[in-house]
Amino acid sequence: MDALGRTRWAIAEGYIPSESSFSDRALISHETACILNATDRDAHVAITVYFANREPVGPYRLTVAARRTLHLRFNDLDDPRPIPRDTDYASVFESDVPIVVQHTRLDSRHAEVSLLSTMAYAAE
Amino acid sequence: MDALGRTRWAIAEGYIPSESSFSDRALISHETACILNATDRDAHVAITVYFANREPVGPYRLTVAARRTLHLRFNDLDDPRPIPRDTDYASVFESDVPIVVQHTRLDSRHAEVSLLSTMAYAAE
Amino acid sequence: MDALGRTRWAIAEGYIPSESSFSDRALISHETACILNATDRDAHVAITVYFANREPVGPYRLTVAARRTLHLRFNDLDDPRPIPRDTDYASVFESDVPIVVQHTRLDSRHAEVSLLSTMAYAAE
Amino acid sequence: MDALGRTRWAIAEGYIPSESSFSDRALISHETACILNATDRDAHVAITVYFANREPVGPYRLTVAARRTLHLRFNDLDDPRPIPRDTDYASVFESDVPIVVQHTRLDSRHAEVSLLSTMAYAAE
Repeated sequence: MDALGRTRWAIAEGYIPSESSFSDRALISHETACILNATDRDAHVAITVYFANREPVGPYRLTVAARRTLHLRFNDLDDPRPIPRDTDYASVFESDVPIVVQHTRLDSRHAEVSLLSTMAYAAE
Repeated sequence: MDALGRTRWAIAEGYIPSESSFSDRALISHETACILNATDRDAHVAITVYFANREPVGPYRLTVAARRTLHLRFNDLDDPRPIPRDTDYASVFESDVPIVVQHTRLDSRHAEVSLLSTMAYAAE
Repeated sequence: MDALGRTRWAIAEGYIPSESSFSDRALISHETACILNATDRDAHVAITVYFANREPVGPYRLTVAARRTLHLRFNDLDDPRPIPRDTDYASVFESDVPIVVQHTRLDSRHAEVSLLSTMAYAAE
Repeated sequence: MDALGRTRWAIAEGYIPSESSFSDRALISHETACILNATDRDAHVAITVYFANREPVGPYRLTVAARRTLHLRFNDLDDPRPIPRDTDYASVFESDVPIVVQHTRLDSRHAEVSLLSTMAYAAE
C-alpha cells in the first residue's frame, strides 16, 4: 500500500493571540500543527514561517517518529526564533517521508474557548 | 457513475477533553468521525489510532451499512481499548468500499460550546 | 479557462440542533451548504440526504443561477421532507455544471454562537 | 521543486456580521482570506465576489509580494465597492503565480468570539 500523506503542506492562516483567560497550558491561546507520520520511517520535517512584512524565518527542524503523531504548538517554536504574538503568519512543511498536517487554533482571549481547524493544503 | 469517496482517510488532529459543563450526551465534550457510505455495499472500516509516545492501537472495526451515515464518537470506542482523554492522538481509516470522512469536535469545558470541523485527508 | 468546481460533492457531517438562544433568523441554530456557481450556465442541483438508520431522502432539487451563490439552509428544505432536528445526517450534491460547496453550522444552543465550517469533499 | 499552490481558488461561504461586541480591530467581526505566496515572484491576484441576487463585483486587485503572506480582510475591500454586511457572498481568486488561500471568520456579535476556518477550494 502507498504511504499515507504528502511531503509538502501549507497553512496560509496563522495568528497566536497574546492574551489568554486561563493559565492552564491546555487553555492558553495557541496554534497547533498536528502532524501524523503513519509510515515506518521517522519523518524529518522542516518548517518555514512566512510573514506580511519581513523575510521568512526557518527552517525550524523537528522529527516525528515512525507511527507517531506530533501536535506541535507554534507557541513553543524558538529555534531559530520564537513566533511573534498578535502577528499574521503562514507556514510551509517539508518532510522526507509522507505526512498529514492539520491546523488548529484555540483562542481563549475572552473567557470562553473558541476553536478552528482545517486540514492543511497538500501540495502536488 | 463512480462510487463517491475514497478508501483511506486520515485525521491528524485528535483530543478529547476530559471535562464538560453538561451531562447531556449531545453536549459532553466529544470528537466525532462522520462517515458517509453512499455506495450500495456495506463498508467494513478499520481505524488505527496514533499517539505521541506509544505504539498505535487498533484496528477498531465497524460497519457502515450501504446508503447510511455513521457519526462515530471516538469517546465510545473501547475495543481493543478506550481512547485516553486529554491526550493528543491521530487516526487513519481504511475501508473496503469508498467512504467520506469528516472530523468534528465539540468542546464544552467552559460552559459554552466550541466547535471545530474539517473534511479529513483523502489518501490517493 | 476551465469551469471552476466539480459536479459531485459530499458533506459527511450534519446535525441541526433543535434549540436556539435567539429568535433572529441569523442566529437560530442552522446548517448551511454554501453553493457557488461561477459558470455562465444555471446549475440544477439534486441533494440526497443520508441517515444512520433509515433510507436516504431526496432528491431535493434547486437551481443556482449562473454567476450566483446560494447559501442554502438545510433547515429550510421541505420537499420531499423536512430534515429532522437533533439527528445525524450527511448529504451528497450532484449538479449539471461545476459548482463549489462549503459546509457551515451555527450552533446557538447556549447563548453564545459557535461556528464550524469546512470545504465539502469534491468527488473525482 | 514545483511552486507551492494553485492559481485559482474559491470560497463558497462568505458573510460579514454588521455587529461586534468590541471596537478593537482584532476583535471586530470580520472575514479574512489568508493568502500565502511562497514563490520568488510577486503574485498579482484578482478577486471576484459573487452574490445571491445581483451581478458579481470585481475584480478587486492586490499584490502579495514574493515570500510573503497577506491576511486580507474582506471588510477592508472598497475598490470597486465595499462588501455589504449581513449579506451572503462567495469569492474566487485568480493569481499569476501559485498561491495558497485559507478562509477564516471571526464573529463577535455576542460578546464571545466565534471562529471558523477552512482551506479554500483549489481549482484543477
